[in-house]
Amino acid sequence: MLKIGLDAMGGDFAPEAIVQGAVLALDKVAADSRIVLFGDEAKIKAVLEAEGCSADRFDIVATTEVIEMGDHPAKAFQAKANSSITVGFGYLAKGLIHGFASAGSTGAMMVGSMYAVKPIEGVIRPTISSLVPTAAGRPALLLDVGLNVDCKPEVLAQYGLIGSIYAESVLGIERPRVALLNIGEEEAKGNAQSKATYELLKTEERINFVGNVEGSHIFSGKVADVIVCDGFVGNTVLKMAEGLYRINKAMGGGNSFWEAMNYEHVGGTPVLGVNAPVIIGHGCSSAQAICSMVLSTEQTIRAGVTARLQQAFKNEQFTE
Amino acid sequence: MLKIGLDAMGGDFAPEAIVQGAVLALDKVAADSRIVLFGDEAKIKAVLEAEGCSADRFDIVATTEVIEMGDHPAKAFQAKANSSITVGFGYLAKGLIHGFASAGSTGAMMVGSMYAVKPIEGVIRPTISSLVPTAAGRPALLLDVGLNVDCKPEVLAQYGLIGSIYAESVLGIERPRVALLNIGEEEAKGNAQSKATYELLKTEERINFVGNVEGSHIFSGKVADVIVCDGFVGNTVLKMAEGLYRINKAMGGGNSFWEAMNYEHVGGTPVLGVNAPVIIGHGCSSAQAICSMVLSTEQTIRAGVTARLQQAFKNEQFTE
Repeated sequence: MLKIGLDAMGGDFAPEAIVQGAVLALDKVAADSRIVLFGDEAKIKAVLEAEGCSADRFDIVATTEVIEMGDHPAKAFQAKANSSITVGFGYLAKGLIHGFASAGSTGAMMVGSMYAVKPIEGVIRPTISSLVPTAAGRPALLLDVGLNVDCKPEVLAQYGLIGSIYAESVLGIERPRVALLNIGEEEAKGNAQSKATYELLKTEERINFVGNVEGSHIFSGKVADVIVCDGFVGNTVLKMAEGLYRINKAMGGGNSFWEAMNYEHVGGTPVLGVNAPVIIGHGCSSAQAICSMVLSTEQTIRAGVTARLQQAFKNEQFTE
Repeated sequence: MLKIGLDAMGGDFAPEAIVQGAVLALDKVAADSRIVLFGDEAKIKAVLEAEGCSADRFDIVATTEVIEMGDHPAKAFQAKANSSITVGFGYLAKGLIHGFASAGSTGAMMVGSMYAVKPIEGVIRPTISSLVPTAAGRPALLLDVGLNVDCKPEVLAQYGLIGSIYAESVLGIERPRVALLNIGEEEAKGNAQSKATYELLKTEERINFVGNVEGSHIFSGKVADVIVCDGFVGNTVLKMAEGLYRINKAMGGGNSFWEAMNYEHVGGTPVLGVNAPVIIGHGCSSAQAICSMVLSTEQTIRAGVTARLQQAFKNEQFTE
């Protein structure tokens, strides 16, 4: 039985939207998958009853505390030992669930990723990534999107490999095109960081490095399937896309491309480079977004990304 | 008589689109403004004749060479002494024209800016900026958009002041809100560069520093009129906007906000921090874009931005 852990207490609309999303996912996950809800048992059961869904279709792990958005992530993760996130990571570290997803405190999710399941040996810095829609139809993976700023070139070069493995195993893209986000197409362009990263990526034989990609082609899909960038730039790209989506929507514009940009419906961003699948959802996730997050967690587990990454980095020479 | 210099030979559609744009601008500039065209006299006159416009409505400075996109900017600027850009900068440096605009080689325009008209004393690094449309209706100024990467915090802090002076004098915005592009709203967020820049901007009393602005609000107009960022980030923002504009248009979406994003129609980007108004247009500028560029050059000259910047930086203590 494959067990998909879901924090029922995290997110702006928890626990209602979370439990509703889990119910939506019930018929979409495989027969041998089971969703494990972490949270206030009475509240979870109340929502399930309102939804007309039997509670025994889920595993429920009762927890009594919630890490709030205002809490200090590291302190709360320890102090609130019976919070849905802390207990969820305990289960994940012990292998009692095979992946864990939450739309709650990003900080606490990162603390759990780094200290409970821990970085994969050989990975200098785990990363958070984001799938972005492209005009070509299939999504591209952008990483890092805000976890690591002032990245060393060695860290960015690893993101090329991590992203390539994810795109191949989870997205099913063969020999994904890996590009470095830069301010020119030519090799010599960029800042000190991107120039040094280019040198490392072009010698990485395990990836299909296609060179630089400019901002104009992040969403075109013409150049790259995996786009490597510093977290400062990636976070700006992501938030700018959100902002433009909102403006576009307010002005009555909209089509399938822009709808795919809707962060309220996107199913969360994977933490990559740690020893188990962890997915972080947007705080304002709708039930639909939670459903997508559950499914992408299942897909990430089934694709065996963690084992592939562990294998890829086991002989890694970079150390911090 | 105010003299607006225009390179008739620069840009993908030169000289036709350039001269046509100059003709469009004729009725829009003030009565005491005169457009000075630099380029192949016979070709310029042929376009004017085709447009049914008398050549004596312009000053024409005959030049015999053109700096091509493939040329090495610095070498070509010297070697092609009779090129439209080199001659134009000669006129600008001598005060025979009061501003110079071109949709030609950006590199050569920068060489001319730095070596013919030179940086303003006290300005560490001149910058190129871009006006971006906002949902609030009035544009915001983004700087730097690609000239300087790996900016020292002192350089970025100066961009706050430069942008503020430009927004006030050219855009007519009173006490423009100056913000630092960052990955969080809080003071402590960001990378090493943005944290150090924040410290400098908050003590700059000559500007209305409003703190950090995230990518989501670059185009909302809600937070800032002037947005300061490293050229690597600014260039990515600008190119991403271009890319999304193109995708949006191809998908049939479009409204006034997106149309304002159309780089083919935007009138060029000012080089700020040098001793004369210099405007660089997009290579693929249409006649309409050239017309806008001529008008924004006129506006920049009349606003006296150069003198204001010279005044602001005359006691500047930063040196490189």
